[in-house]
Amino acid sequence: MSKSYRIAILGATGAVGKELLELLDERNFPVKDLKLLASERSAGQNISFKGENLRVEAVGERAFDKVDLLLASAGGSISKNWIPKAVAAGAVVIDNSSAFRMNPEVPLVVPEVNPEAATCHKGIIANPNCTTILMTVAVWPLHKVRPVKRIVAATYQSASGAGNRAMEEVKNQTSAILAGEKPVAEVFPYPLAFNLFSHNSPMNEEGYCEEEMKMINETRKIFGNQQIRITASCVRVPVLRAHSEAINLEFETPFSPEEARKILSQAPGIKIVEDGKANYFPMPIEATGKDEVLVGKIRQDISHPCGLELWLCGDQIRKGAALNAVQIAELLIEKNLLKQDHERVIAA
Amino acid sequence: MSKSYRIAILGATGAVGKELLELLDERNFPVKDLKLLASERSAGQNISFKGENLRVEAVGERAFDKVDLLLASAGGSISKNWIPKAVAAGAVVIDNSSAFRMNPEVPLVVPEVNPEAATCHKGIIANPNCTTILMTVAVWPLHKVRPVKRIVAATYQSASGAGNRAMEEVKNQTSAILAGEKPVAEVFPYPLAFNLFSHNSPMNEEGYCEEEMKMINETRKIFGNQQIRITASCVRVPVLRAHSEAINLEFETPFSPEEARKILSQAPGIKIVEDGKANYFPMPIEATGKDEVLVGKIRQDISHPCGLELWLCGDQIRKGAALNAVQIAELLIEKNLLKQDHERVIAA
Repeated sequence: MSKSYRIAILGATGAVGKELLELLDERNFPVKDLKLLASERSAGQNISFKGENLRVEAVGERAFDKVDLLLASAGGSISKNWIPKAVAAGAVVIDNSSAFRMNPEVPLVVPEVNPEAATCHKGIIANPNCTTILMTVAVWPLHKVRPVKRIVAATYQSASGAGNRAMEEVKNQTSAILAGEKPVAEVFPYPLAFNLFSHNSPMNEEGYCEEEMKMINETRKIFGNQQIRITASCVRVPVLRAHSEAINLEFETPFSPEEARKILSQAPGIKIVEDGKANYFPMPIEATGKDEVLVGKIRQDISHPCGLELWLCGDQIRKGAALNAVQIAELLIEKNLLKQDHERVIAA
Repeated sequence: MSKSYRIAILGATGAVGKELLELLDERNFPVKDLKLLASERSAGQNISFKGENLRVEAVGERAFDKVDLLLASAGGSISKNWIPKAVAAGAVVIDNSSAFRMNPEVPLVVPEVNPEAATCHKGIIANPNCTTILMTVAVWPLHKVRPVKRIVAATYQSASGAGNRAMEEVKNQTSAILAGEKPVAEVFPYPLAFNLFSHNSPMNEEGYCEEEMKMINETRKIFGNQQIRITASCVRVPVLRAHSEAINLEFETPFSPEEARKILSQAPGIKIVEDGKANYFPMPIEATGKDEVLVGKIRQDISHPCGLELWLCGDQIRKGAALNAVQIAELLIEKNLLKQDHERVIAA
C-alpha cells in the first residue's frame, strides 16, 4: 500500500491556501489527514476538501503535533514565529513566505530548476517569490545550455499577488470608476483600476523595491550562481490574476531564437505560445489556472549580438506559489525524504 | 499687430483631433480661421471651438485652399493621399501619422530634443510615435551630457493609443466581466479588460512589431544618431489613458542617479515624481491631462556599472501626439517659418 501523509496548511483561508487545497485534490496528493490552520481572525471558517467539511483551526502551540508536512502560506512574521515550532514538532515545512528564503541553511527550490537542492533540507524548504519562479522556469533551460550573463526584466504583476482582498479592491475600484465615482484604495497605496504603479514593497537606498531584490537575489540562489547580473522593474497592473514579464537576456555568445525555442519547447513546465502573424503571445487571461509558464515572443535582441528576448505569463498563485510548493512536496515523497508520522516515531 | 494663421485639422473628430482643438484654445494659438476636416463618415458633426460651432467638412480637393497650417491626425493611408495635396496648395503640414516619419526629406521633431530639424522642412514635418516622444523627452537631456549606447525599453501602453473606440471597448469589456459576461473584442484582437498583450501592430520577420520598430528607428532619427542600440517590448495594458515605460540605459561611462536627477529636473517638458518611502512614482492616472512627461525611479542599474534606469509616464494623446504637434507649430511661428496666406501670395 502506498504511503500517505498528515498534512497541515497554514494560511488555509488565503488565496494561496485555497489553491493548495485544490491542487492536493486535483493531483491526488497522498493525504492521510488534513489540518487547516489560520490566524485567530480567520479560524472557525469551514472549508470543503474532497467532499468533507473541515473547520479552520487557530494556529497554536499543539497545532503541529503529528504533522508530517506543513504547507505554510502566511505572512513573513507568522512564518518566523510558527515554522521553527513546526520543525521542532517533527514536520517538514514548505514555506511560501520570504522569511527563510535567503537563509543559507534553507534550500530555495523550483522543481524544474534545482530539485537536488531539496534533498539537503533541515526541516524547512522555501518556496521562492512568484515572479522569480516564473522567470527561473523560463530562463533555466537556456542557462543550462549556455550561461546567462545578465538579465533585464520588467514585470506586469496582477492584483492577486497581494491576495484576495487586493483582487476585490481592484474590482470595486473599477466598478466605482465606471459609475463615475472615486475609487477607494485600502490594500494598495494607490488606485490600481485603469492605472498601474511601481510595486508597493519597501524601497532600499539604491532605489530597488523588495520585490525587485527578491527577483535578483532569489534567482542567483536558485541558479546557484552569484555572478549573474540582474535588474528588474516590478510594476503592478490592473490584471486580476497571472503575472507577465518582459525578459531581456545577455549570453556570452549568440543564442539563436530557433535554438532557444527548441530548448524551451522541450523544457518542463513551459508551454510555447507564439503566432506572430496573429499577434498571439502569452496573455494573463490565458495563463490563469494553468500549470505551465506560457512563453513566447522569443527573438534575437536587435540591440545586442548576444541578446535574446522573451515574454512570459504565469499564474502566480498556481505555479508562482501553490503548485510549486506541492511539486516540492511530491519531490520529497519521490525521493523518500518525507516521513510518515509513525516512521518518525520509530526512527526517534 | 501679431500674426495669426488659417489652420486646418485633418482628423478633427478623433481623440488626437479633439485634443488639438483644446490645445489651440488653451495655449491661445494665433488662429485666424479654423477648418475642421475628416473622412466622409465623420463629416457633418458640429464641434465647438472658443464658443463657435464649427461644422466638420469632408476632406476633398479644395479643402486646403488658403490654409497656412494643416495639423493632420488621420490614418497613414489618408495622410499619404491628402498631405501632398495640402503641401501643393501651399500649407505647411504637421503630420501625426507614420506615413512620412522615416522619409529622409521630412524632419521628425520633438521640440525639446531637435527643434533645429524643423527649420529645414519642405512642407511636411512629422510628429513622432507617442511612446517614442515620451522616451526621447526623458533620455535626450542625459544623452546630451553623455551619449547613451544602448536602450532596453518595456512599455505599458494604454487603450487610448488606439483611439476613442478602443477606450470605449475596454470600458465595455470591463463592465461585461464585472457583470459575469463575456467581453467582446472588436477594436483590439483580444480582450484588454483585466488583461494585457503584446502590442497589436504587424510583426516583422525578426519578431518585432511595428510599434517597437518605430521606437527604435524614430529615436535614432530624432537623436541624429544611428549608432544607438535600442530594443523595446511594447505591451498594451488596461489603462484608459497615458503610457508608461520602464527604461534601461547603458552609457559609455557611469552616470550617477544624482547627476541624472539634477539634469532631468532642469530639462524641459519633464516633471520628476519620486518619493521612494511612499512608493510614489509616475502613474498613468496622474500623467493624464498633463503636458509634462513624469519621470521617477531614477537609479543606478545594479546589473551594469554604466547602467541607469528610469520609469516614466506621459499622456500619449497630449505630449505623445497633439501637444507635440502644437509645439512644433509654435516653434515654426517663433522662427518665422510659418507664413500667413497673404504673405505666401505676395511671395509667389
